[in-house]
Amino acid sequence: MDSTLAWVNGATTDHVVVGDRGFNYGHGLFETMRIAEGVAPLWPWHQRRLCADATVLGIEVDEQRLSQYLKQALAAAPAEGVLKLTLTAGNGGSGYRNAQSAADDTTYCLQFRALPAKRGPLRLQPCQYRLPDNPALAGIKHLNRLDQVMAARELSADHEGLLLDSEGAVIEALSNNLFCLLDGTWLTPNLSRCGVKGVMREYLRAEVFPALGLVVEEARFGLEDLARAEAVFVCNSVRGIEPVSSIVGCGEWSCIEAVESIRAQLNAQVPCFNC
Amino acid sequence: MDSTLAWVNGATTDHVVVGDRGFNYGHGLFETMRIAEGVAPLWPWHQRRLCADATVLGIEVDEQRLSQYLKQALAAAPAEGVLKLTLTAGNGGSGYRNAQSAADDTTYCLQFRALPAKRGPLRLQPCQYRLPDNPALAGIKHLNRLDQVMAARELSADHEGLLLDSEGAVIEALSNNLFCLLDGTWLTPNLSRCGVKGVMREYLRAEVFPALGLVVEEARFGLEDLARAEAVFVCNSVRGIEPVSSIVGCGEWSCIEAVESIRAQLNAQVPCFNC
Repeated sequence: MDSTLAWVNGATTDHVVVGDRGFNYGHGLFETMRIAEGVAPLWPWHQRRLCADATVLGIEVDEQRLSQYLKQALAAAPAEGVLKLTLTAGNGGSGYRNAQSAADDTTYCLQFRALPAKRGPLRLQPCQYRLPDNPALAGIKHLNRLDQVMAARELSADHEGLLLDSEGAVIEALSNNLFCLLDGTWLTPNLSRCGVKGVMREYLRAEVFPALGLVVEEARFGLEDLARAEAVFVCNSVRGIEPVSSIVGCGEWSCIEAVESIRAQLNAQVPCFNC
Repeated sequence: MDSTLAWVNGATTDHVVVGDRGFNYGHGLFETMRIAEGVAPLWPWHQRRLCADATVLGIEVDEQRLSQYLKQALAAAPAEGVLKLTLTAGNGGSGYRNAQSAADDTTYCLQFRALPAKRGPLRLQPCQYRLPDNPALAGIKHLNRLDQVMAARELSADHEGLLLDSEGAVIEALSNNLFCLLDGTWLTPNLSRCGVKGVMREYLRAEVFPALGLVVEEARFGLEDLARAEAVFVCNSVRGIEPVSSIVGCGEWSCIEAVESIRAQLNAQVPCFNC
């Protein structure tokens, strides 16, 4: 990562104040966006999610300013890569109560980084660390990510993490949402108790599966169900769709035809994910 | 807060890099320490807790460097006040996996602020927001503090928050641990599932209650138990012991004699808490 390619509240800088509520409490949100040909193709989806979740956390968003900062970063950054947008409740780290009164206080931080290297079908490793139930914050891509950090500490280098909840239900991969084809129906975990509702998950459900005439159901299922799935894939808004080739102690999948048709449809609609 | 009274890795600065894992994931810890006559009287307690919990989060601590930075801050800051020490896994915010290899990568951040204003007995308000169960991180004063931020959003200006777990057990106040005298025995909530094990809580249990010949038990109890308590107080390492005068919908306490004897003992052992 080129540390100079960062902007905070419109200034080209890679620093934030130590009093920022993002640094002190994780009082903020982030979006990790694929940049292609100098634009963020899924920006409306990121923006909608960000603004809705900011309200839950009591963070004011000035959409005009947000749009201006994004344009500034896109103009200065390479045409292909990843832009991480972090929004926090701003300076005021000396107590949990938020003294923020206006969108002027919000911190808008953008960081550019290069695209990650391409990789083949994923091998997932179920993590012993379990995602705690927290209905009030479930689904939100906030800055309290110690659950993911702790789960990641268990992983061997060539595996991605698979995260379960306290009762053993499958929730998501470490940085991805998960879909599986079970008994002829596509399922994705219900995220009302924990997990992150990724933009790509929402885009696939709203725009890609319907275009193929396919239905996706939100469901609660465990590793024993995944073990008999016909196909499994994960997705996020940086890498698009990635097929899963194995889950440790659970199963292996070699036929990824069912996944390829969905990936082809995504690529047709958003060409940058043609990876 | 004087924003210039801050130090990061020994440099006088109030900025951290945007790639810091504290800012991106809350991958870090903090200690909020009372400073009196130019020293931090409970430093050995803070240090022990910090180093133990850093290990859980996979953060390397260079104790020599930590001690040097603390000395530097104490020498430059006013003799009375509050020093907040934040320790993070350092720069490396582009993935949940921690690339940290050595204590050199750890971020050591110190922020000074003035003592908070004194206040009378506290009025507590039970929060609707519930602390999620998370045994793996329970007790640790880490940087993922959205639970406290969300709970604080409910509070009226003249109340402090009282936090319960998902089953309604009393856990702690927003920035304090809680003790109550019930049926002649001092109790404090068991924090094995959620909550923060504050340094003052540990100090009182190990050094103050025993000096008075009193026993404290860790217990699981609800508002209905607190309602019939003879006395309630909260504590932390900035304000020491503060009696509780009321809990909304639960009870009121005017006789604080039982609390005063414990406070007097604390003050005898650590005079700065004579507030």
